This record gives sequence, C-alpha cells and structure tokens, in this order.
Amino acid sequence: MNGSTFGNIFKITTWGESHGKAIGVVIDGCPAGLSLEEEDIQKFLNRRKPGQSRFTTKRQEADQVQILSGVFEGKTTGTPISLMVSNTDQRSRDYSEIANYYRPGHADLNYDRKYGFRDYRGGGRSSGRETIGRVAAGAVASKILEELGISLCAYTCAIGPVTVDKACFDKEEIFRNPLYMPDAQAAQKAQECLEQAMKETNSLGGMVECIITGVPAGLGEPAFDKLDAALAKAVLSIGAVKGFEIGSGMAAARSNGLENNDAYAVDAQGNLIKKTNHSGGITGGISDGTPIVFRAAFKPTPSIAALQETVNRQGEPIEIQIKGRHDPIIVPRAVVVVESMAALVILDALLASMTTRMDRIKSFFLDKESETRL
Amino acid sequence: MNGSTFGNIFKITTWGESHGKAIGVVIDGCPAGLSLEEEDIQKFLNRRKPGQSRFTTKRQEADQVQILSGVFEGKTTGTPISLMVSNTDQRSRDYSEIANYYRPGHADLNYDRKYGFRDYRGGGRSSGRETIGRVAAGAVASKILEELGISLCAYTCAIGPVTVDKACFDKEEIFRNPLYMPDAQAAQKAQECLEQAMKETNSLGGMVECIITGVPAGLGEPAFDKLDAALAKAVLSIGAVKGFEIGSGMAAARSNGLENNDAYAVDAQGNLIKKTNHSGGITGGISDGTPIVFRAAFKPTPSIAALQETVNRQGEPIEIQIKGRHDPIIVPRAVVVVESMAALVILDALLASMTTRMDRIKSFFLDKESETRL
Amino acid sequence: MNGSTFGNIFKITTWGESHGKAIGVVIDGCPAGLSLEEEDIQKFLNRRKPGQSRFTTKRQEADQVQILSGVFEGKTTGTPISLMVSNTDQRSRDYSEIANYYRPGHADLNYDRKYGFRDYRGGGRSSGRETIGRVAAGAVASKILEELGISLCAYTCAIGPVTVDKACFDKEEIFRNPLYMPDAQAAQKAQECLEQAMKETNSLGGMVECIITGVPAGLGEPAFDKLDAALAKAVLSIGAVKGFEIGSGMAAARSNGLENNDAYAVDAQGNLIKKTNHSGGITGGISDGTPIVFRAAFKPTPSIAALQETVNRQGEPIEIQIKGRHDPIIVPRAVVVVESMAALVILDALLASMTTRMDRIKSFFLDKESETRL
Amino acid sequence: MNGSTFGNIFKITTWGESHGKAIGVVIDGCPAGLSLEEEDIQKFLNRRKPGQSRFTTKRQEADQVQILSGVFEGKTTGTPISLMVSNTDQRSRDYSEIANYYRPGHADLNYDRKYGFRDYRGGGRSSGRETIGRVAAGAVASKILEELGISLCAYTCAIGPVTVDKACFDKEEIFRNPLYMPDAQAAQKAQECLEQAMKETNSLGGMVECIITGVPAGLGEPAFDKLDAALAKAVLSIGAVKGFEIGSGMAAARSNGLENNDAYAVDAQGNLIKKTNHSGGITGGISDGTPIVFRAAFKPTPSIAALQETVNRQGEPIEIQIKGRHDPIIVPRAVVVVESMAALVILDALLASMTTRMDRIKSFFLDKESETRL
Repeated sequence: MNGSTFGNIFKITTWGESHGKAIGVVIDGCPAGLSLEEEDIQKFLNRRKPGQSRFTTKRQEADQVQILSGVFEGKTTGTPISLMVSNTDQRSRDYSEIANYYRPGHADLNYDRKYGFRDYRGGGRSSGRETIGRVAAGAVASKILEELGISLCAYTCAIGPVTVDKACFDKEEIFRNPLYMPDAQAAQKAQECLEQAMKETNSLGGMVECIITGVPAGLGEPAFDKLDAALAKAVLSIGAVKGFEIGSGMAAARSNGLENNDAYAVDAQGNLIKKTNHSGGITGGISDGTPIVFRAAFKPTPSIAALQETVNRQGEPIEIQIKGRHDPIIVPRAVVVVESMAALVILDALLASMTTRMDRIKSFFLDKESETRL
Repeated sequence: MNGSTFGNIFKITTWGESHGKAIGVVIDGCPAGLSLEEEDIQKFLNRRKPGQSRFTTKRQEADQVQILSGVFEGKTTGTPISLMVSNTDQRSRDYSEIANYYRPGHADLNYDRKYGFRDYRGGGRSSGRETIGRVAAGAVASKILEELGISLCAYTCAIGPVTVDKACFDKEEIFRNPLYMPDAQAAQKAQECLEQAMKETNSLGGMVECIITGVPAGLGEPAFDKLDAALAKAVLSIGAVKGFEIGSGMAAARSNGLENNDAYAVDAQGNLIKKTNHSGGITGGISDGTPIVFRAAFKPTPSIAALQETVNRQGEPIEIQIKGRHDPIIVPRAVVVVESMAALVILDALLASMTTRMDRIKSFFLDKESETRL
Repeated sequence: MNGSTFGNIFKITTWGESHGKAIGVVIDGCPAGLSLEEEDIQKFLNRRKPGQSRFTTKRQEADQVQILSGVFEGKTTGTPISLMVSNTDQRSRDYSEIANYYRPGHADLNYDRKYGFRDYRGGGRSSGRETIGRVAAGAVASKILEELGISLCAYTCAIGPVTVDKACFDKEEIFRNPLYMPDAQAAQKAQECLEQAMKETNSLGGMVECIITGVPAGLGEPAFDKLDAALAKAVLSIGAVKGFEIGSGMAAARSNGLENNDAYAVDAQGNLIKKTNHSGGITGGISDGTPIVFRAAFKPTPSIAALQETVNRQGEPIEIQIKGRHDPIIVPRAVVVVESMAALVILDALLASMTTRMDRIKSFFLDKESETRL
Repeated sequence: MNGSTFGNIFKITTWGESHGKAIGVVIDGCPAGLSLEEEDIQKFLNRRKPGQSRFTTKRQEADQVQILSGVFEGKTTGTPISLMVSNTDQRSRDYSEIANYYRPGHADLNYDRKYGFRDYRGGGRSSGRETIGRVAAGAVASKILEELGISLCAYTCAIGPVTVDKACFDKEEIFRNPLYMPDAQAAQKAQECLEQAMKETNSLGGMVECIITGVPAGLGEPAFDKLDAALAKAVLSIGAVKGFEIGSGMAAARSNGLENNDAYAVDAQGNLIKKTNHSGGITGGISDGTPIVFRAAFKPTPSIAALQETVNRQGEPIEIQIKGRHDPIIVPRAVVVVESMAALVILDALLASMTTRMDRIKSFFLDKESETRL
C-alpha cells in the first residue's frame, strides 16, 4: 500500500518526480556504525546517470547526491539517512502538447484515471528518475553486504535479438562496453542493432541477469515472503519490467523432474555441493547457500519518435510523434537498478534471519558483555 | 517478514503443516455484510483437492472447511474469519528414512539450515497443503470481487512440451478435462505426455495463465507496490513457481517499441479502447481498465520414483528412490491457487484505491446520512 | 489497520468472538527450537479463567488450549503456531432483548454504526474472551523472555478507593489472594469494598502495575516506535483501559526538573547506577537497563444489574437492568492480560534490537561456523 | 519497528537530527486533489517555533518549510510529499563536554548503549526538533480533516501546580497567552510559577488536553488497533510524555459502574445522545460520534542549569550544570505536536474506515461513472 516504502528492517521510502525540485530517499533501519560517505553512493548513481553513451538520453543531469541526516563523523548513527539529488536539467519547455494526450506504452491514462489528473512534466512520478532513490539506497545496502561477504553482479544478458553467450562470459567486460554486457562480441552486435533501431526511430527491449554470491543458507520465509517472491516483487516494481525468472525459470515449465532436480553430492574436500543450480539458489523460498541467479525482462522504451496512433483527453483519435531526448533502450541504465533492488531484498532478508533460532538468540544476548543491564 | 501474512487491508494469515492436526487461515479486514457460508469456500477447495484424476496423488483428504468465527446469521461481521481444515489422511508410516536425507528439488536442506531442524513429515510447512489456506481465503476474496463485477479465470496453458492453441480457446472446456486446459486437443496430448512421464517414473512442469476482467482503472501504486509487482510476489510465493510474466512478458525483451506499444483508439461507440494489450492491463504499475493477463511457470514435481543422487544428514553420498503418492504434475491442482492469489491481490488493491482521491473521499463521508455523528 | 494482528517480528493474530465455535491466536515469527507444550500456555490461561473466586463471573469455561501447528517433537519449528480454545459454555439463552438496545459503557452502538449490524451474543468480538488469544501468545513470549533472563510481574495496585501500600509490597502475596494484590491488608479492604459494590448492584474500577526486570539497555526506537509508546498502545488495546503511565507518569506533570531527573551515580562495585527511576526504565523511548515500571487504569465493569437509562434500536428511551453472570471488577482477571501484552512488546523490541549495530551483525554472521554457504 | 514511519494509509516518515543539514518528512498516501501550499504548513510550524516568548528557548530557527515534491499546480498529486526545513542556527560551539557525560533525564546513555555511540550535538535524533516533521505532516492531515468537518483543538490544561478551571474555558484565550491556556487567570498564575522556576534554574512539567469534534462513529478497530490505543501510542511517541488518559482516564480506576457509564438518551429533536462523556468519545476502541477528549502528561524539561550529579563515559561520578538555551517548560510548544499527532491518527482511521462495509464498497464502485473500465 502507498507504494513508496520498501523493506521491513532496512526500510526505504523514496520521493520525487521528474520535474520537481529534487528526488530522494529516506533509509530507516540502517545499522549504526557503518562507514559512509557521499562518494559511496555517487559511484552507484553514476552507473545510471544519463549521458554515458550514444545509447542513453542526452539530458544532462549531474545527479549529485547529498547526505542530509543519519551520518555523524563518517559513520551511520542508526537513525534515518536522508539522501537527496537536486533536479537540475528541468527544461522549461512547453508541456501543453503532452499534457493533452495519452502516450502509448506510458502510464499517462492510468494516472489520470487513478488520481483525476497528473503531473505531466516528464512523466512525473512514473519517470525513470524515480529509480534514483532506489539506487542511492541500494549503494548503502551493497556496502553492508560487502562487509558480510556477499556480492552482487548484474549485467545485460540480452538486447533485442542478441543474447550473451555464456561460454564467453567475462566479468571484466561488463564495465568496458556501454551496454554493460559480459561478452564483447555480443555487445558489438547489440550496438549495431541499436543503431539500426535508432535510424528507424524505434527502440529495443532486453534482459538483465543478476548473480548474488556469498548468501548464507536460510534466508527467506516459508509462505508468502519467500526470498524469490520478494525478489520478483522488487524487480517487477521497476518500471518497464514485464517478466521475472529464477534459476531455470520459464524453461522449468517445459522440463521434467529428472532433469530439473539439482542432485546433492560431496566434493573432494568432503563438502556438500549441488551438481547443478536449476533452482537458482532458492528452494521453498529459502536460500540454500549457492549463488542466487535471476533474470528480468524489460520492454522497449515506449517513447519513440515514430508516428503513433493515440487519443487525446477530449477522446479524439490523433497521431503523434514523441520528441525529446529518450533512451533507445532502457536496459543498460537499468542494470544498476536491478542490482540495487536485489541488494535491498537480500539485506532485509539477512537481517530478518537473525531472529530465527532460539540458540542463536540466546548466544547473541547471553554471551554479550554484561554492560547492558543497569 | 515472518511470511505467513499476506495483504494490507484484506489481510490473511495462514498456518499449518502437512501432518499437523489441521491447516487454516485467518482473514482480517473482510468487509462486513457479505453473505458467506462454508459451501462458498468448499467449492474452491474441491478444485485443489487430491484424488480428482489419475494425474493427482491418490491421498484421500476430505479437505472439509469449517468457519470458526467472523460470520453471524450468514453474514460476515467485519471481524476475523477463522477457517480450518482438519488433516485426516496422516498415515502413521515410518518417516525415519526421509528424515535422514535431503530430497533433491525439495527444501529439506534449506529448512535444516534455517531452523536447525525440520518437521520432516510430508514436507511440513513446505508441503503443498499450505496452499489450502490461500484457496479458502481466495474463495472469499473472489466472492467479493464477483459482487463488484470483477471475475478471474485461471487455467493450464502448457504442460511439458504441449501448449494450448489460443485459436482453440474454449472457456467451458477448462472444467471438462482433468488438466484444466481450455483446449480439448491440447489436453489430450498433454495427458499422453503425462502417461509417458509416469511410466518413466518422471514428472513434468507446466504453465498457468490467469485473465482478470472487470478491473477498474487506477488500481496499483506508482513505485514499489505496482499492481504487477504485487501479482508477481503473490505468484512466486506459491511453491514450485520459477517465473512470472505479464502481458507480452519475456517476449517484450525481444520486441521493439513500435510493436510493443499499445495504441489507443476510439471504437464505433466513441469509447476509448486499446488496439492491443501487450501491457497485460497494467502500465506503470497501475491498471488501465483492460483485462489483466499474466502467466506463471511451474517446475516439474520434484518427488519422483526414479533413482536420484543425494546426500544424507551425515554428509554421505547416497542414492534414493522417493516412494509415496505424488502428483506427476503440480499444475492442474495449482490453477485454483494461482487464481486465489490473484483474487487476494486485486481485492486488496481495490480496497486501497478507495482512499486515493479527495473528491471521492469527500463524497463518501459528506453525502452519507448524517446519523454517524452524535 | 485491521486490528487483529500485533507485533512486527513475533507477530500474533487473534480471532474469535464470545459465542463462536472457538477462540484462537496464530503466532508467526516464533524462533525455532523453543521447548513448548500445552501446559506452558494453560497455566497462563488459568490466571484469566472465570470462576476463580466470588469476584469473577460464575460462567464455567474450561478454556483448554490446543496446539494445532508449529510444534514438532516438543519444540517450535519456526513456522506459525496455531493455538485454539473451544467455547464451551455458550448458553443458548434468548439474546433478543440485548440485541435490541445499546448497553451503556459497552460498544454495542459503536459496532452497529461501524459494521451496520453486530453479533450481539455476549458482546461478540468486543467480549473479554478476545483476550484469550493475547494471553496464550503472551505465555509463549514470556517463556522466551525467561530463557533470556527477563521477567515480568504484574499485579493489582488499586481497586476503587483502595491503593496498595508500597511499603507492604510482598511478591508472594500476589498469588495468595483472589485480587492479585501484593499487600494482604489492602487486598482485605478491597474485598470489603467489592462486597459492598456487589450488594449495591454496582461495580468498581482499578489499577494494574507491571514491573519488568532484566531488560537490556537499547530496546525501543527513537521516533514513533518508542518502547513506552509501544507499551501504551498494547495496554490501551485491552478493553476497559482508560489510562497509561510510565515511571512517575501523570505526576511528572506536577513535578519539576530537579526532582524528576534521575541522577546517575556509581555504586560500591563501581557500576553505573541510577539513583531514582522516575523514568520507569525508559528515556527517549529507549530502555536503559533498569526495571521498566508502568500502570494501567481500568474502568469499572459496565455490565451492572442496577437500573440504567438507555435507548433502543428504534431510538426510544428505555430503562434496563443487565442480567447475567458478570464480574463486579475487571482488574484481577486482567492482570495476566497486561503482563502478556507487555511480554509481547518487550520480546518484539528485543528481537528488533538484534539488527541495530554493524559490529554485532558482523560477529553474528562472520563468527558462525562456515557451514551456511554451499 | 525502525520507528521513523507512522500511519498505515496516510503514512509519514520523518528524518533529521538537531544539528544535521535539515529536518524533514515524507508523506505517502496523501489523497490527490487537495489544495496545498507552503503557507498551510508554515502556520502550524510557527506554533512550535522557538523564540515565541520568554518561556521558550532563545535559539533562532526560521523553521521555514519547503515543499520538494508531490504538489503540482497547487494540488497534491497523490504521490509522496517531501517537506524539508533547513537547520539554520547550528552554533559551532564546543560539544566536547556534553559528548563525554550522560545528562540526567536525557537519552544520552540509552543511545550510547543502543548504537555504540551517538551524535551528541543538541541531542541528535532525540532532540525536540524531530517533531518538526510531525507538525508539518499534521498540518496536511488537519487540512484534510477540516474539509471533512472534523476539527482538533489542543491546549495546555496544567503547568506544574496550576490547572485550568473548566468553568473558565475560553477557546479564544488559547492563542492570546504564550502558554496556550484556555483560561487567562490560570495562564497568569502559571507564568508566575515559571518565573519562579527559572529563577531557581529549575523547570516544570504540565499537561496538554485535546478535543476532537466532528469525528464520525465507527473509526478504530476492535482488537489491537483500537482508536484510543492508536492515540496513546501517537502521544507517548512524543519525547517527554509520561502518561496518557482518555475520557475519565486515571480517575475511572477510582470510580464505579453507575457513575462511569454514559447513559444514552433522546434529545428534544429526537436524536440519540449521550448524557455524559466519560468514555471520551471511544468505547471498545471505536468512536461513537461524540467528541474525543484525551490528555497527555509531560515531564519537566530535563535540561536545567542547576547543579546535578551524573557519570561520565569513563564511569566516573561528576557534577554538572547544563548550559545553553533551554525551554523552562516543554508544554506550550508541544501543544501543536499533540494536535498534529492526533490529526494523523484520526485521518488514518478515517481512511481505513472506508473499506469496512460491503454496502458502502458496492455503492463506491458501482455508482461511479462507468469510465473506469476500458
């Protein structure tokens, strides 16, 4: 409900719209004593910033973050961390045209029907700029996870018809090409497809994959708050995502039990291992300690310059061509958004898992130095 | 967190495990004044009951529901509705074998790692019986939605390699074949595949589709509580689901803007319509008043009689063959579970939408008879 | 919202009304591995059971609890614990009289206005029997707290004009007299007042005090979820409570800073101590490690046999005399309800406190045996 | 949990500490279409601003609010409203002294124990400045309530030994004297007491009363979310509050049923009325349509210049005198905080009440213009 708050323990609340004064997030429940400075957050924001390549919008937004509260002498205090990014590139152009009709593939009509009217400037709250708060909070969550030995790696695994070849996976390559693909050859082909789409005033969809390693077994809850269900919600809550799959995903539907079950075995060192990971690291909603692997499908950017049919607020059919500086593909800038949402889910589940077992609760409270009771 | 409570306004809490005394659900926040009797709920439970065909387990469970509270003189009172189903077919067989190893594709290991031990009888809380509470609550939600002109229709759209042909869609057929498929020919082929899988002591996966009609525009929230995100979580929270897609879904990733955008137009009666529904009825997380269409991918039943490798609690590699009465496919009995979860999500979003607009709030409180203030 | 769920981590959901089939509670989030049997819960329920003395209703309710789920081989499994008490003494007497008018001091009118009608049998959901679920859950919470060195002690500190003399406080006495007063002489006087009130077909109010010892410093949150705020809500949520105070309480309003501040000092052993406890163990919403002390004021039982003015559903003024078997005082049976609610609040805050500090989180996850990651 | 978020539907999240860059609040769930400008909020903030009289701190804080999001063309859009007040009077004085010891009556020790360290500048998050966010949000809630015919009136009803005389109640007087007392004579006496306390480098406590009129019957929930329980939590969550009472409050404990029950009757116009209001407008947790009346007890300002004993961080006993610009009484500036918290509770309960009854839900959705379904 309400929709702008996410998480239970590490809880974030985002605010702001495309053309308001600023955009931000409040993080409540961040543990005290974490070293944190603006640069930790800025480096995440820079990954989603516009203007990184010819495949992203030419809008210039500095997207410079400010820490307004919750950090004292370089450490988090345990109280709310308020992060804000000012909106600087708000062109005072004429929005009267866009105000008057419903862009196909956008939520214009939906907002009008829901709220009675809408802030039509740049999509208002439905703008991709809403994800700035998510990424800022995701940077903090990722920093905590890192200190606990958990790391996340998201990347583009498909753009339009081009899919990354698993055999060519190169983690270093992700940050070398503008599409965040872990396969140089696929990245090259995808760029060609994008050039072609741009020429045709069209846009492309794509797929993001995320791998999370170092996750302890036991995260997630049995019934409604399964870890994969939480990831699905987190990912589908990103605008433009139309599908989510974990492990073997949609392909599991076409598989059979013998193939899809992950056999347990013992490795040379005597450790229990899984011979495959069709589960994607989660069974019954609970992590098993193997890498978590999921994918998100993004639709093509709906804002295209090609001629489109639509209807205006007066209910008359019209033809439009959307002007402005739009990404021909959402995916590359969305990679860090997916990674951030995943970090928020994993951290929240990790903190929740601390209260699961009597033996661990007892050792937590009874083994501590006795200073805590007067 | 906790995981056994779902929903914000129409809020349900399920409890119970496979071999406990009973299984149940508490519904809190059900509006007062709804006509409700046990039969309304029973007809939903009967759709997931075991023993309906040769493709479902032969376990005999009456799954008879009892209303324990919240209904007075045939109407809901607005206070919690407690629904309970006794567990009757608890064979007192020897579970010592299963207690000692980890079944591939099951959550045995995960529960042991999370809780330190597990109720190994029939899967405990991770059993499919946990869905009884969901379906019982879903029946109540569906009844409310029906009174408001909203209806849900879920069915099997694929089993293993067999996919329903959209051109042959026949809603009546869904309840005529044991697989709940809306295409008689596909149902026939799927049954043959299942016979074959059973002969090979194997199992199959499949896909469920759900169509929701009559949903008003404006349900769902802009950021984290998007309506499709809520549906994704609801669906992934069902054990064995590995993927979720809405509208064009995963295919959107391979599409382009011109194809994937839904053009608005005006029909002969002058009404605003959408020429296609690639969005699946939801854009920007908010319903637009067109049918909502989503799909869930189910993995094959992990309990198979074929020989499998695994490890026991002592960490030794062993080979097992799982005995017992298991479904060769999860999908047909899961159809009503998917429909129930969707009903819960839609109803909750519907109730939440009542507080969205000042004009409607004012007319709600100020147009009412003045009896309410002493 | 909804109102029947309480707590965040150790979360309970109660259900049932006075004359339904049963009354119960579902506990979600109970740590796994706690030894638990029905007797642990029964001994709490027996403290609120009717028929204990001539000052409580003569209704005979066995109030026998059943554990329906969440316990396996004598230990909690970490999944929902469903507890149920059947309603046995439901006299099939004629309720048509009470159905037709509004009892002063009761919520009859309020329910009718809220829900459009009400379950008038024995007060329905507003009956004191609703507290059975709270006490059953409180018994489980108290058992956990006990294992962590935290203990609660609630008792009657005033009845009508009679107040316990702090100088005569005797903990053993609490369970020796039917009023649960820690001062034999006051208990004697209070019984005389009650005899007199009963003769006059009247009833009395009273006060419950609760002392919680062994609480570590650091529980509670800075802003809205202050520990004392959570206690206040818990206590006011018990029917008939009209006031709550912590430490010096209402008297603080008439005090001054010099008197009311608790000076810190160092005791003979060199430990930091507080010289007084006007704060009641909580400052700024956070526990300081000293005993938590609060009080709740209960109104007199509204059901009295004396003649009263009221109005019927037709809006006509009438005079009534309430028949039936009513307690002349609510307080003695409410003592264990107050204690239970306090146990729920403290346990929930305790579990929440585990995620407060990075250093403790790191040692929790990094010092554990490495078995948790495959 | 977390503690910085309040409310379910009209949900607010506050952030900021005494000496951070700014202080603010995010309101999520504000209905769309409310006229709102900064001045609406500023006039509430001005009531709690320091420097209004010689009885409040001499710190100069402009406390000028900025609307950063959620308002478009003078109306709320239904998306998050971010409100911010910059901290301007942050004297860069030396805090090393205060950093090193625990001020009696303050939460210094508690924060250190909870978080391992604290932001000692001006009390950090435990500062009274934290209430700025509450008051800003309360201003918005009050504006909505006003449009629905509900109004709140809070005032000082006691300071130290001086209590307002009900017979002299004059609503206009509240805003005429610096203590916000509705009785000029009491205000005069209270000022004399305060002058005396200030001379003695001491401080006083006091009491705030709040009356809410126009509340419809039926707000609040039967069990844990009783309306008075929600008010109690809201009020105790304000720093320095030590007690809460509704209607006859603590006095109910010393009363009897005949006196304390509110008889129903019929007035000259044939309307159902209550002859008294000992319930304070709420019975069984649900409003009955009569005025809601509650009181909050505030402790004396703990920061006093008089000599006090305490302990430093090294565990050594020391004597201190607290310097700085402190209010000799918290109450006058807290009046608007109490009113704001009450407005938040009432509005949230009001919105929640919209989903209570099937008949009203049906007329809400089925009587609307048919435009909402495509």
